[in-house]
Amino acid sequence: MPGNDSVGSVEVKHWRFAEPPDQLVLRSGATLGPIEVAYETYGELSPERDNAILICHALSGDSHVASHPESAGSKEGWWEKMVGPGRGIDTDRYFVICPNCIAGCKGSTGPSSVNPRTGKPYGLEFPMVTIGDMVHVQHALVTQCLGVERLLAVTGGSMGGMQVLQWATDYPEMVVSAIPIASASRLSAQGIAFDEVGRQAIYSDPHWNGGDYYGQELPHRGLAVARMIAHITYLSDRSMHEKFGHRLQDRTELGYDFGPADFQVESYLRYQGDKFVQRFDANSYLYITKAINYFDLATDSRAARAAYERAKAEGKGADHAHSLIQAFSETQARFLVVSYSGDWLYPTYQSKDIVRALQANGVVTTFCEIQSAYGHDAFLLKDQQLADMMRDFLHHAHLAVRNGKPGPRPARQEG
Amino acid sequence: MPGNDSVGSVEVKHWRFAEPPDQLVLRSGATLGPIEVAYETYGELSPERDNAILICHALSGDSHVASHPESAGSKEGWWEKMVGPGRGIDTDRYFVICPNCIAGCKGSTGPSSVNPRTGKPYGLEFPMVTIGDMVHVQHALVTQCLGVERLLAVTGGSMGGMQVLQWATDYPEMVVSAIPIASASRLSAQGIAFDEVGRQAIYSDPHWNGGDYYGQELPHRGLAVARMIAHITYLSDRSMHEKFGHRLQDRTELGYDFGPADFQVESYLRYQGDKFVQRFDANSYLYITKAINYFDLATDSRAARAAYERAKAEGKGADHAHSLIQAFSETQARFLVVSYSGDWLYPTYQSKDIVRALQANGVVTTFCEIQSAYGHDAFLLKDQQLADMMRDFLHHAHLAVRNGKPGPRPARQEG
Repeated sequence: MPGNDSVGSVEVKHWRFAEPPDQLVLRSGATLGPIEVAYETYGELSPERDNAILICHALSGDSHVASHPESAGSKEGWWEKMVGPGRGIDTDRYFVICPNCIAGCKGSTGPSSVNPRTGKPYGLEFPMVTIGDMVHVQHALVTQCLGVERLLAVTGGSMGGMQVLQWATDYPEMVVSAIPIASASRLSAQGIAFDEVGRQAIYSDPHWNGGDYYGQELPHRGLAVARMIAHITYLSDRSMHEKFGHRLQDRTELGYDFGPADFQVESYLRYQGDKFVQRFDANSYLYITKAINYFDLATDSRAARAAYERAKAEGKGADHAHSLIQAFSETQARFLVVSYSGDWLYPTYQSKDIVRALQANGVVTTFCEIQSAYGHDAFLLKDQQLADMMRDFLHHAHLAVRNGKPGPRPARQEG
Repeated sequence: MPGNDSVGSVEVKHWRFAEPPDQLVLRSGATLGPIEVAYETYGELSPERDNAILICHALSGDSHVASHPESAGSKEGWWEKMVGPGRGIDTDRYFVICPNCIAGCKGSTGPSSVNPRTGKPYGLEFPMVTIGDMVHVQHALVTQCLGVERLLAVTGGSMGGMQVLQWATDYPEMVVSAIPIASASRLSAQGIAFDEVGRQAIYSDPHWNGGDYYGQELPHRGLAVARMIAHITYLSDRSMHEKFGHRLQDRTELGYDFGPADFQVESYLRYQGDKFVQRFDANSYLYITKAINYFDLATDSRAARAAYERAKAEGKGADHAHSLIQAFSETQARFLVVSYSGDWLYPTYQSKDIVRALQANGVVTTFCEIQSAYGHDAFLLKDQQLADMMRDFLHHAHLAVRNGKPGPRPARQEG
C-alpha cells in the first residue's frame, strides 16, 4: 500500500513493484524492474469502490493534476481548472488518481532513475516503452496498489487521451467510461515529423552525450529548441496572432541584430524553452515522444492485435480503418470524445475517426468539437463547456453504475 | 555591363556596384559596399525593351531558376517547371532575369563574402538587410547593369512574392504587372515563431561560434535542424499523410531504439536536413529569415512610409489594414495574386488581405486560390493551372504594353 513520499512534496505518493525477478515485460520484449510509480490522489474512494477516476497526463505533465485543498500552500496543478471540489471532475464526489507515466522524470521510473544493474542513471540503457506499457503500469497501480477493480472513468488530453483509448481496449471490463480529449488513435505523420525534429535538436546538443549527461552539464539548449518547436504546435495561428501579432518586445524599432528578441512572439518562445529545461529531463523527452509516435491503437491494442493475427492467419491484409474498428470490439465503456476546432496537432478529423470506429461497434458515444481560437493546448485552459460536459457525463455514468447498468451497449444488452 | 562568371557555372553572371565611398545605405542606416550580384538571364531582351520579367527566389533559392537550353548539360533550376521555351514563363518570348538576393550564399554578397575592411568573411559583421534592401539592389541591377527601365512582370513565391510586393510599391512606375505567389504582406506570428526556433537551433550549435566559423567546422547540425523545422512548414498534414503515412523505413517492426529512423517521414526529414547543409550557409539562413520576419509592406513600402509619417504628423495612429491600402496607393501594376488551399505557412487569408488592399486602390487584380493537397511548396511543383494562368496573364500584359495601355487603373485613366 502507498506511503507518503519522503522526498519532495508530501502530496506525491510512491508505489514500487516489478521487483526482480518479476520484472515487467514491455511491448518491445525488454524487461523493466523494479518500477516506482509516483501518483497523487484526490477525494475519497467510496465504500462501493465505484467512484474512481483515472487521469492520464500529457507529454510534459505529472501526477500533480490539481492542488490539494486540504494541504496548505498546495501548488496549482496542470488541470486545476477541471479537477477539484465542485469542478468538472468533482473531488467531493469522485476519487481521482493521477500517476506520472513511466519514462517520465516526475517521480516514476525513467531514464534519469538509477539503473539497479549499474548503480548509475539509466540514460539510454532505459528500455523503450509504449503507451501500452504506460497503461500496463497504471493498471498495476490501480488494481494492486489501490485495490480498485473498476474505473468510473479514464480521461486525459493529448498523450493522456491515447492512454484512455488503450485502457478502454486493453482492459475493457474495467473501464465504465472513457473521455479522450484532443487526442488521436495515432499521431499524424506531421506530428511525428515535429517530434523527430525535436529529438534531433536534443541529439545535436553536445552535452546530450548519447544520453549520458547526468551529473554533468545538461543538454539544455537542445531541449529548449525541442520545446520551442513543440510549443508552436500547441498554439494556433490565430491565437498567436491575437496574443502577439507583430508587436515588438521591449523596443520601439526593429533591432537589426541577432541579440535580444525583436518580436514578442520570439521572446515568449525563448522564455518557454528556458522555463521547460528547468523542469524536464531531455532523455524523458526522447522516450515519451517515441512512445507517442509509436502509438497506433489500430495495431497495438489487445483486441486489434488479436484481430491482426487472425487476419494474418487468414491471409488477409490489414486495413487501418477496419483495424481501428476491431480495436474497440471488446470495449465496454461509454465514450465522450472531445476535440477543438483550432487544434491542428490532433485535428478534429482524428477524433472523428475514433467516433466512427466506436459507432461501428455500437458503443454509446458522445462527440463534441469545441469551437476554439486556441490550438491543442485549449484543453488545459479554463473551459466551462468542457467542465459542464464532463460533470454531466460523469454524473450519468455514475448513476448507471449505481443502478447496475454500467454497460455502454444497450442494443446488445437488451437483445 | 555583365561579364561571364569566371568561377563556377558560366551561366551565372556577376555585377558589382556600390563601391566605396558610394556604398548602399540600407534600411537600418548601415552601409554595404561593394556589392556583387549574381544573376542569370534567359531569352533575349526585345528591341523595344518591353519583355523583361524579373523572378525573385525564395529563402533557399538562387539565380538558377531554370536550365539554359543553349548550354549543354545545364542543370535543372528551382522553377524548371515554369520557366523555359514554351512554358508558363516562355523564354522564347520573354527576357527573364533572376538575381540571387543579397545576404544569400549563391554568388551575391552575403555574410560568407569577404569583408573588404578586414579581409575575412563578414560573419555577423554583415549588416542586417531587409526585403526592401534586396529589392533596392535588384533595381540597381535591372536599371544600371541591364539597362531595363520597365519590367513587364515581377514574380516569385514566398519571400520572392514579398519582393514582388515591395517592387510594385517602391518602384510603381517600373512594374507593368506583379505576380506574388503563395506570399503575404507580412509573415504570420506563427511563421516568425518557426523561423525563430530555426535560428535558435543554429545559435545552439557550438560550431556556429557567433557566426565566425568560416574555414572551421561548420554548424551543420544546427542548420539541419532549422531546415527540418522549415521543411515541415512547407508541406501539409495531408501531403505528409499521403506521402509517408506511418510506413516504416527499411524495417518491418518498430526499432524500439534511438538509432535509424523508424518511420519514413523521419528518414525523409533527416535526408532533407543533411542535403541542405551541403548547399547553404548558416549565417545566410539567419539573415534571410530575419529579412522575411522584418518584412511588413504596410509599414515598410515607400508609399506606406510616407502615409505613416503623414498620419504621425496629424497625430493619428496607424491601422494595419489601412496602412496596407496606403502601401499600394502609387502602384501602377496589374496584379495576379495566387495562393494554395493547402498552404498553412502563407495561408490564403493573407493573399486575400493583399487583394482587398489592391481593390481598395482600384488596382486591376486577378486572384486565384489553387486547390491543392500540398502545402507552401506547391508553387514549386508542376502545376498546369498556374502555368496557364501565368501564360495568359503575361500575354495580356504584354499586349497592353505594346498597345500603349500598360496602366492597371482603367477608371482613373479613362477619367
